[in-house]
Amino acid sequence: MTHLQGMLSSFLGDRLIAGEAGRAPYAQSEGHHVGALPALVAQPVSIDEVCRVVQAAAAEGVAVIGYGAGTSLEGNAAAVTLDTLVVDFSRMNDIVEIAPEDLIAVVQPGVSREQLNEQLRTTGLFFPVDPGANATIGGMIATRASGTTTVRYGNMRDNLLALKVVTASGALIQTGTRARKSAAGYDLTHLFAGSEGTLGLIVEATLRLHGQPEQIVSASWDFESVEGAVDTVIQTIQSGVAVARMELLDTRAMIACNRQSHLGLPECPTLFLEFHGSAAGIAEQLDIVRMLGDTNGGGTLKTATATEERNALWKARHHLLWASRAMVPGAQAWITDICVPISRLAEAISRAETMIEASGLFAPILGHVGDGNFHVFFILQPDDAPSWSKAAAINEAMIDHALSVGGTCTGEHGIGLGKQDALRREIGAPAVDIMRNLKQALDPQGILNPGKIFI
Amino acid sequence: MTHLQGMLSSFLGDRLIAGEAGRAPYAQSEGHHVGALPALVAQPVSIDEVCRVVQAAAAEGVAVIGYGAGTSLEGNAAAVTLDTLVVDFSRMNDIVEIAPEDLIAVVQPGVSREQLNEQLRTTGLFFPVDPGANATIGGMIATRASGTTTVRYGNMRDNLLALKVVTASGALIQTGTRARKSAAGYDLTHLFAGSEGTLGLIVEATLRLHGQPEQIVSASWDFESVEGAVDTVIQTIQSGVAVARMELLDTRAMIACNRQSHLGLPECPTLFLEFHGSAAGIAEQLDIVRMLGDTNGGGTLKTATATEERNALWKARHHLLWASRAMVPGAQAWITDICVPISRLAEAISRAETMIEASGLFAPILGHVGDGNFHVFFILQPDDAPSWSKAAAINEAMIDHALSVGGTCTGEHGIGLGKQDALRREIGAPAVDIMRNLKQALDPQGILNPGKIFI
Repeated sequence: MTHLQGMLSSFLGDRLIAGEAGRAPYAQSEGHHVGALPALVAQPVSIDEVCRVVQAAAAEGVAVIGYGAGTSLEGNAAAVTLDTLVVDFSRMNDIVEIAPEDLIAVVQPGVSREQLNEQLRTTGLFFPVDPGANATIGGMIATRASGTTTVRYGNMRDNLLALKVVTASGALIQTGTRARKSAAGYDLTHLFAGSEGTLGLIVEATLRLHGQPEQIVSASWDFESVEGAVDTVIQTIQSGVAVARMELLDTRAMIACNRQSHLGLPECPTLFLEFHGSAAGIAEQLDIVRMLGDTNGGGTLKTATATEERNALWKARHHLLWASRAMVPGAQAWITDICVPISRLAEAISRAETMIEASGLFAPILGHVGDGNFHVFFILQPDDAPSWSKAAAINEAMIDHALSVGGTCTGEHGIGLGKQDALRREIGAPAVDIMRNLKQALDPQGILNPGKIFI
Repeated sequence: MTHLQGMLSSFLGDRLIAGEAGRAPYAQSEGHHVGALPALVAQPVSIDEVCRVVQAAAAEGVAVIGYGAGTSLEGNAAAVTLDTLVVDFSRMNDIVEIAPEDLIAVVQPGVSREQLNEQLRTTGLFFPVDPGANATIGGMIATRASGTTTVRYGNMRDNLLALKVVTASGALIQTGTRARKSAAGYDLTHLFAGSEGTLGLIVEATLRLHGQPEQIVSASWDFESVEGAVDTVIQTIQSGVAVARMELLDTRAMIACNRQSHLGLPECPTLFLEFHGSAAGIAEQLDIVRMLGDTNGGGTLKTATATEERNALWKARHHLLWASRAMVPGAQAWITDICVPISRLAEAISRAETMIEASGLFAPILGHVGDGNFHVFFILQPDDAPSWSKAAAINEAMIDHALSVGGTCTGEHGIGLGKQDALRREIGAPAVDIMRNLKQALDPQGILNPGKIFI
């Protein structure tokens, strides 16, 4: 490690961090998993530097983990051994190119989604994927993230055209082109997307952009029951209405939201919606959705068109994690993530609710319900071991139920450290073996983010 | 091979074809590549039989090629050696399940897209991917096919949730679930999609369905120039209007269409369009598109709402290959396939036109222009070697230009035998090496569709 340190500092200078205080933040993320303290942190500023960093690490057989904004939730970027080199992409945050005529942006991995949309504002275009957190694009690709707008615009996979990747040997490859589709060989782009840094380091991405909608209408909508809210969403999806956002917040989530963000909304199961389109198109969508909700115990569909009012709603939604934590001073959060076929969503949420109720835990439910995806935010005191055990049991039961109805153990957070056993249950040992063979083929030394997805 | 024949016939009976007349059709496809005569053709009826067939072939080290409808165009399913076993999926053509409540269908690989849509007709749902030919779903996944509706509904990748795959050792794996999205480990589903049978045999697929649109309006629209037609399409894409189909036919294509299908349309560059949505939504789309076309030399936008009239238009479009062949008695077709960023599409088509004009060849142009994807149909006499050389030179020049503007050598036909050198030029030798490593990892004996994509 001393040798590696010398070699890296020769070209990184003070962008190689070796002091403990400087390294400590990289052992943490917004999730509940805590990583080992990495031995070194490199902050490259160019693709060439990333290649040299990985080549040096490969020569020494040192583990390499890419790091974005630290917003992952399953320990996806946590070090598992002390002799780990973290590659922090925070200084590679340039927007390389915006090509409005092709609806494309080319970005470095450290660009955050908010930064990208800020830059796009005057172009008439936007990048839709919104996981809530202000994650980096590199991190979002690495975990195949999705979020509030996926129901209409797709997830990171759907909005990704091409990557530049530094391989385990420190070579640079390009996957894909700027064409909107391609049948040219194996789909390397989408193999690296979601591989959590275990197959290569993403150093540049070509993204699909979308036209800013002519009009945007947001809405909050209170329901008598979670079931009524979910059934409204399911029926909307089945009717083919392309609502841009369909988020469920349960009563506990609304209490936390009101307290933190002063929304003054009814404290009952609530849908946060957003409609994109022409004025006439949105009116049509609203008519259909309102009709469906009315038969499912929907209250007042409260629409907002003014930008500030809309932003207030979504800001409250995005702050729900902190709002939930603030309900229990000193508490941490453990956030689950399952995704089921939409026809089984009401059942899945109802089962989670029943278990939470019985456990006595404080655990708001939030769902990207249009995708069949939802989260439980377990709010737990760090030293309350029995409560962590209860949360773990509920998490496992949620996963088992999701798998039993044809769903997945993770809709958007990835496997990381937290869901390796669940992955095996989901796809079976032979398919995990296929993944292991692929890893072995691309990273024979096993230096890229070791210990993740499978062991 | 005799040993393999005995072993396979023991459970396949007369579904193992060994006679030359029975094997001969499998050396042909709709493309211009001719394969070797395979030694044996198996027609399994179940996943279990496919596993046993592949296990037997693996034990003997015999090459295995999956075969659908034979509509591929780059020799993707052509045998390269005489000791090849073809697995013909024509008897595995059951629709296993339609789950309207989840907008999902589960199908065997031999199901054709027309068969699937016929079954879906009464459900209110449809499967959108339409490559023109009545290909099988298995073949469409294997080549990552797309087609006329991709501009709105995406390609096979976008409409695929999960696969069952028989691996090179004859084991069965499941990739993916019925959930609409997932972040569970490597994206095996989309690694197998487009791998042209070189990594595994697809034996079942879970597909995304879409709601049948409330209303459908088709249209043909004559233009003064190809440029005017293409610019109209580019501006439509850039304006964010989600037209369901946007196809370009050049003057030669329209002459062939009129002669074969008696459309009676003007013989000039023409757009075939289709609009899906509510009556009001379609009216809005038509207004915008008409306004764009009017400034680009568009003639009469002739709409059709009656089912028969719409079907006549698209049937003519789908029969263009045969219509073009019929223009030159005894001729064969060589169909190219490049895809460029949409801003470079007018330039790419114009260059192709100039080269065709200079060559003296009869070669209609057809484009899925909303994707930046187009084809030249070279209509050639089988023994006219100089014309085949001219076509080859134009094909290469089209590919070089596509690559120079950030496009791909194939939008939807795949690499097969025909584009291996182009793939190397497109993604570079290091990325091809990555593909080769993946192949080696999943098929160490190299028995699955050898000689395809790369050597």
